[in-house]
Amino acid sequence: MIGYRFMGKAHSNAWRQAPHFFPLKAAVKLHTICGRDVKGVEAARDQLGWENASADWEAVINNPAIDIIDINTPNDSHAEIAIAAARAGKAVLCEKPLGLNVKQCEEMVSAVKKARVVNMVCHNYRRIPAIAQAKKMIEAGLLGEIFHYRARYAQDWIVDPNFPLVWRLQKGVSGSGTHGDINAHIIDLGRYLVGEFSEVCGLMNTFIKERPLEEAAGKGDGLGGKGSRKMGKVTVDDAALFIGRFKNGAIANLEATRFALGRKNHITLEINGSKGSLAFDFEDMNRLKFFSNDDAAGIQGFRDILVTEPGGKHPYVGNWWPPGHIIGYEHTFVHTIADFINAVAEGKSVQPTFEDGLRNEQVLEAVEASAKTRQWVKL
Amino acid sequence: MIGYRFMGKAHSNAWRQAPHFFPLKAAVKLHTICGRDVKGVEAARDQLGWENASADWEAVINNPAIDIIDINTPNDSHAEIAIAAARAGKAVLCEKPLGLNVKQCEEMVSAVKKARVVNMVCHNYRRIPAIAQAKKMIEAGLLGEIFHYRARYAQDWIVDPNFPLVWRLQKGVSGSGTHGDINAHIIDLGRYLVGEFSEVCGLMNTFIKERPLEEAAGKGDGLGGKGSRKMGKVTVDDAALFIGRFKNGAIANLEATRFALGRKNHITLEINGSKGSLAFDFEDMNRLKFFSNDDAAGIQGFRDILVTEPGGKHPYVGNWWPPGHIIGYEHTFVHTIADFINAVAEGKSVQPTFEDGLRNEQVLEAVEASAKTRQWVKL
Amino acid sequence: MIGYRFMGKAHSNAWRQAPHFFPLKAAVKLHTICGRDVKGVEAARDQLGWENASADWEAVINNPAIDIIDINTPNDSHAEIAIAAARAGKAVLCEKPLGLNVKQCEEMVSAVKKARVVNMVCHNYRRIPAIAQAKKMIEAGLLGEIFHYRARYAQDWIVDPNFPLVWRLQKGVSGSGTHGDINAHIIDLGRYLVGEFSEVCGLMNTFIKERPLEEAAGKGDGLGGKGSRKMGKVTVDDAALFIGRFKNGAIANLEATRFALGRKNHITLEINGSKGSLAFDFEDMNRLKFFSNDDAAGIQGFRDILVTEPGGKHPYVGNWWPPGHIIGYEHTFVHTIADFINAVAEGKSVQPTFEDGLRNEQVLEAVEASAKTRQWVKL
Amino acid sequence: MIGYRFMGKAHSNAWRQAPHFFPLKAAVKLHTICGRDVKGVEAARDQLGWENASADWEAVINNPAIDIIDINTPNDSHAEIAIAAARAGKAVLCEKPLGLNVKQCEEMVSAVKKARVVNMVCHNYRRIPAIAQAKKMIEAGLLGEIFHYRARYAQDWIVDPNFPLVWRLQKGVSGSGTHGDINAHIIDLGRYLVGEFSEVCGLMNTFIKERPLEEAAGKGDGLGGKGSRKMGKVTVDDAALFIGRFKNGAIANLEATRFALGRKNHITLEINGSKGSLAFDFEDMNRLKFFSNDDAAGIQGFRDILVTEPGGKHPYVGNWWPPGHIIGYEHTFVHTIADFINAVAEGKSVQPTFEDGLRNEQVLEAVEASAKTRQWVKL
Repeated sequence: MIGYRFMGKAHSNAWRQAPHFFPLKAAVKLHTICGRDVKGVEAARDQLGWENASADWEAVINNPAIDIIDINTPNDSHAEIAIAAARAGKAVLCEKPLGLNVKQCEEMVSAVKKARVVNMVCHNYRRIPAIAQAKKMIEAGLLGEIFHYRARYAQDWIVDPNFPLVWRLQKGVSGSGTHGDINAHIIDLGRYLVGEFSEVCGLMNTFIKERPLEEAAGKGDGLGGKGSRKMGKVTVDDAALFIGRFKNGAIANLEATRFALGRKNHITLEINGSKGSLAFDFEDMNRLKFFSNDDAAGIQGFRDILVTEPGGKHPYVGNWWPPGHIIGYEHTFVHTIADFINAVAEGKSVQPTFEDGLRNEQVLEAVEASAKTRQWVKL
Repeated sequence: MIGYRFMGKAHSNAWRQAPHFFPLKAAVKLHTICGRDVKGVEAARDQLGWENASADWEAVINNPAIDIIDINTPNDSHAEIAIAAARAGKAVLCEKPLGLNVKQCEEMVSAVKKARVVNMVCHNYRRIPAIAQAKKMIEAGLLGEIFHYRARYAQDWIVDPNFPLVWRLQKGVSGSGTHGDINAHIIDLGRYLVGEFSEVCGLMNTFIKERPLEEAAGKGDGLGGKGSRKMGKVTVDDAALFIGRFKNGAIANLEATRFALGRKNHITLEINGSKGSLAFDFEDMNRLKFFSNDDAAGIQGFRDILVTEPGGKHPYVGNWWPPGHIIGYEHTFVHTIADFINAVAEGKSVQPTFEDGLRNEQVLEAVEASAKTRQWVKL
Repeated sequence: MIGYRFMGKAHSNAWRQAPHFFPLKAAVKLHTICGRDVKGVEAARDQLGWENASADWEAVINNPAIDIIDINTPNDSHAEIAIAAARAGKAVLCEKPLGLNVKQCEEMVSAVKKARVVNMVCHNYRRIPAIAQAKKMIEAGLLGEIFHYRARYAQDWIVDPNFPLVWRLQKGVSGSGTHGDINAHIIDLGRYLVGEFSEVCGLMNTFIKERPLEEAAGKGDGLGGKGSRKMGKVTVDDAALFIGRFKNGAIANLEATRFALGRKNHITLEINGSKGSLAFDFEDMNRLKFFSNDDAAGIQGFRDILVTEPGGKHPYVGNWWPPGHIIGYEHTFVHTIADFINAVAEGKSVQPTFEDGLRNEQVLEAVEASAKTRQWVKL
Repeated sequence: MIGYRFMGKAHSNAWRQAPHFFPLKAAVKLHTICGRDVKGVEAARDQLGWENASADWEAVINNPAIDIIDINTPNDSHAEIAIAAARAGKAVLCEKPLGLNVKQCEEMVSAVKKARVVNMVCHNYRRIPAIAQAKKMIEAGLLGEIFHYRARYAQDWIVDPNFPLVWRLQKGVSGSGTHGDINAHIIDLGRYLVGEFSEVCGLMNTFIKERPLEEAAGKGDGLGGKGSRKMGKVTVDDAALFIGRFKNGAIANLEATRFALGRKNHITLEINGSKGSLAFDFEDMNRLKFFSNDDAAGIQGFRDILVTEPGGKHPYVGNWWPPGHIIGYEHTFVHTIADFINAVAEGKSVQPTFEDGLRNEQVLEAVEASAKTRQWVKL
């Protein structure tokens, strides 16, 4: 595994846990964790349960004892590492976003295709039990023809204007703001559940245009007070929203923001079709709401399905606890990695592949272009 | 109509509104409103829409131009007025509780039976659309055999120890506290939806045993401060709860309290049967939750039915507004009075009759006896 | 009152009820109800509680015994009647939308200004208790600077492709589809709660492009079966959504649809500001959700305010029932008309005036233009 | 660890995970897992991550390399193993219920006291983040004096009369039904959050008195059909409820059932005090509802606290994921074991100790005695 911070913690947990809960087609060994900072990666090795630590990612990739490379580094190094790993014949799991732009993503797709290696981009929310259930229901035709896909990803961690100018708020480092970070997730869920986008029209906004530099914010400047704090320019979007159409005729409305007080990690989806509707809220991620027009008159209503029952052949929940005993955020990674391990064992990629990562990036760029040109953009 | 305060306001509204929304089998005329206080009743006549006002209830009862007597007076005069009205051959609608005790209720039932007059006790919550819908569903067998009836009526208006000793907190005037006032409602709903009680075991409690006298609280005593305020003894229950059994084998758990901060008029019911479950919350009175075990595996869940659709032949909601346009508290009285008017026109009582009022009182007294003797009491 | 169908029923109820629940500065007399169909209006007179019926609206407007004209006719006659009423010196209450287009609205505004008559457009949702409360809270600064206004008005009554081509689906008669009918409401609430729009970019869509003609659908065509039913073209939008900006810098996302199964009359709003957030759902219209960033760490969360308490000086709820006893859809009209009666008595218009009706129409037209030209449109 | 089934799986996970997420005062080694069935325990060793497997619990207890004994065996062996472990000087963690009856529990308490070993009974629900938060709030006085504790634990897994007579439905093996299994949990939460019980009065009920023997149900009897299946008597309670009082004057209402269709693992609590109220639902275990009477008039309402923020110094949530990223059932065991490990390292027991297990059993037995004698029972 390359990278050991937030996603490193979540992925390591998944690698450790998958064998204890899922029937895997191969044994798993947490061989090496890799990061730039020697001291940091050594501490992570111990904390996260890896056998070895390394500061040399190329050595790791070329280590013949290693079959799988899991990339959790900052976004700007995904492409280089993934392409090298593919060339080395390793199976590659890459955190989202796949690359920094469409061009990078295309190269990555090309590399894994050429090398014929198993590849996956980690859009872990596809494997939330309620989302997996929604997918099954849509495929079974319970919603009929889809009319609307409406999604929002809302957080509130930078509402305070004194929150410092961290790297995620600097375009040079992060690529984009809410758009690439969280809109990407609901774009992926839209593609997974509804289909491919055909055109989009968007708006991006930065509410707070200047923030204290991190250093100044952290240490104070010794000069007495706010007035003298050094400020820097926020170069990414605080909110990004767009309307659009899918190729199958459905209408899209997506919104991402970090300026919705009280919404911590609030992903809300609603899908309306000719036979029924689905609604989902990530803060209550074990639940799925379902309205069926086939129910008898007088007793129709959104069903509040607690997706903790193996009944109906659910792919994940039966491996955990009895009905009514909920699971959490980290389990979505365990599901992802369990499926990936089996894919590697069988030599056949499972969704979402690098191809999905590329298509996601195409939508992201189309929205950005639309926001800039104030025009509709076709895909 | 005899009595013109809170219930007088609600009943007058219902008499005025019923003809505008329901197809009635007789024309309605708001002939006379009657109360002890001449000035007060005259003001009420004007405000509430009556033609005449009177301070002489016996004259009203004997007025040949009047066919219906609607009793909204304090509880201790229900029996006298209702019996006189029955003897005068009038149809009688009486606010709950029917009488002060079982003996009075028996006399009232006897009087209306002897006089063969149409009679009804106003348990208006039976005609909440969601409750009417629940009744239909239970009768249609959607719940199967009933196992549990669980109900709670919670309010919070006397949590403050400085709230004065109003008449409702004095047993001599009110008869009882939460028990007769609000437990009575969920007992009635239990009888309506599940069946007759067979035995009960209860507990009644007074959390705040002394309160400032109303006069002292209102005017101050001129002697400077709380220390010198005159206090009086609270002689009724602040909370009353009981467990019990129904004759059909179902288990009961009922609780009434005025000490649940944040619960304003919170009636929550849950009924569990062999085929499904129902849940209801009066503060969201247009909704009914329904779990059906007949739903397919994987998509089971409580349905959130917004009971505003005439579909499935609902007896009331189609007379108001389109689906999704909710109604409120007062409408339960309109439904009650519309049904009562038609009953009078047809000369045939509809539920809940005085007989229901009597049975309700029997349960109330059994719980009180149980709380006093610390024994189970059979019905 | 001119017009006696759905809105006629709701307005008549409000005229009847206001004097019984609100302290009015003038007495109210339901003088004359007016409609084109002599027989229909006579039946309505009786059912809705009016003294006289008329089929001649000009006579009504010129009747010196009448002070107020309440217009509930189809949209295409609003302007003519309102302008005539203003010229006759009457106070005018007009159902929304004010006119068919900006030009008509401007003439109407001009007419009431010239005549100096009290005027109001009936955007009754402003007087939902929870919305009135939201307005107070925003004005008191509890939300701080507003970042987001997100609103959706969803219904589901025409999802069935066999639902006939009623007049509301024909542009010639109705003017527009969901956009003018229901988007208009959430545009008005946005203007009321957040401020004036500065630019918009929208999309309108018709999912089902042909429907059976009403006659054919109703009567059958005697030729055997669906295949031979006569179909007509749907000329209005089934869904209309737009993104935009307010003049104060807030971001807007509005969506209206009649194709969301399970959503009956589902108006959901969320407003996020620098100090807190508000959320509202019309199907639970007595509730308002409020998140305050001023709450202490660890106990922050959206408050579920049941807006039934007169505490905090609420303008409406104290006139109805005790806390926890909810009210419904029709009460919003009672509040509107009570305020209008007092405005007439005092000779001073209250919001929303014809001016508000005009501004609403300007936004509607801007969105329509945007959807047509696929461009952003400034206001 | 002795025992390796459902609780063995949950505890093993917690032993594995605690070191990766919590700063522990001692290193942890999963030394030996022990069970009667040699083959089964060997498979469990591998699956659950233990170094050694053993079928001889006495050898394990006396192994000097082992410091901690974690007991997850069937209830009838808890006492023997725990007492032996204490005598061997080991720290002991024992699954609930502590013993089969008060006498056993007393002996266990006596053994750990005499041996002065660190001891804990695994009432893991105390360490649900929302419950830990509730405890802090109550201790900080945010609820004031407590009036009501109302709790329900509802499941639905044996509603089907064809569900076989598993060991949990046989008193000889299980000790009791819903009462010891799930009422025990809400009794413990009542003791933890409110205080000690002073008297109780209960009712226990068996809805389905006969069930197919497990063998018959599983294999069929080869004789054709239900009629000839062998049935056995259900000897435990399907539902157990009781009312009661706490020593501090609060009123209790507790109910446990396995006959509430749609309720999977539904623990609902409500606590009402003189200053506020708390409500909790285990199926949404990351949320805590809080009503504060200190909030300003007009904006009071139950707050929906998503307990995922380290703010306010929460003892557990900061060790997992960022705000809004929820956790699940198994994490309650991780918290329990992390605290237990630190307790062992420091040589000082943390709540809930064996003493708590004894007191829980005293309440359970009092309710059983009450249900049998139909009398109130004092504690």
